[in-house]
Amino acid sequence: MNDQNGYDVEDLQPDMSATFSKTITEADIVMFAGVSGDTNAVHLNEEFAATTRFGGRIAHGFLTASVISAAVANRLPGPGTVYLGQQLRFKAPVKPGDTVHATVTVVSVDLAKARAVLSTVCRVKDTVVIEGEATVMITSSAQRAARERQAVPLAA
Amino acid sequence: MNDQNGYDVEDLQPDMSATFSKTITEADIVMFAGVSGDTNAVHLNEEFAATTRFGGRIAHGFLTASVISAAVANRLPGPGTVYLGQQLRFKAPVKPGDTVHATVTVVSVDLAKARAVLSTVCRVKDTVVIEGEATVMITSSAQRAARERQAVPLAA
Repeated sequence: MNDQNGYDVEDLQPDMSATFSKTITEADIVMFAGVSGDTNAVHLNEEFAATTRFGGRIAHGFLTASVISAAVANRLPGPGTVYLGQQLRFKAPVKPGDTVHATVTVVSVDLAKARAVLSTVCRVKDTVVIEGEATVMITSSAQRAARERQAVPLAA
Repeated sequence: MNDQNGYDVEDLQPDMSATFSKTITEADIVMFAGVSGDTNAVHLNEEFAATTRFGGRIAHGFLTASVISAAVANRLPGPGTVYLGQQLRFKAPVKPGDTVHATVTVVSVDLAKARAVLSTVCRVKDTVVIEGEATVMITSSAQRAARERQAVPLAA
């Protein structure tokens, strides 16, 4: 673990998994419209959204996806992780009041580069609403030890 | 155009492009932490963030990426678009007060499936902070016309 209580790359093994869950409320949707600038009627206008295939307002896809960010930053690998990339496939809509469970699972670890690939799946009950993959850079206990050795002057 | 003032798939041509811009403020970062649940110290704790390679707080990557969602939903293809997928590569940090310019450009159009692939690039001044690709489903004037023809009973 690093000093922020996050995993080092040396701690990670394929199939390690963690989940962060969050209920997506009406307040979240309104605030996300504000922070993103995405004011699509399907998110904000119930009368319009009721006429669509969704039958009512749905959450922004990137709002649901942001719960993955919380799973990565808070749980696995946790604090100290730097996001390099994310791939997202939007599979089903999320409605106000739905609880999103974002599960991240280690797929592969590159010790030399201190990187890992994680599968990232968001579910509402038994329905997969987003699937994809994250690439992250992680703290390394080996790199920390090497830096500390370099900081010690060599005996002449 | 569809009745929400968005482009139909038949209107799209490769290289069509649009940009949506938004300043990422401190309020956005605090609200994004709330809606996502991502409370990473590098976003919320200035004293900690000042000790990192970033030299101070940075925006959540997914917050910056959400400006792409606004460019797609508000501009090109605009209202009526359904997001199918998004790929993101995080290239550089965004700081509170930075203005993010999200540019979406049509790469390819599949008329039969009413889908398009868009390149998606976020810049702060001349620095690319996110690059990637979106896959979207778009309204189709041909499909609308076919539905209207089917709605007219055939003469016996």
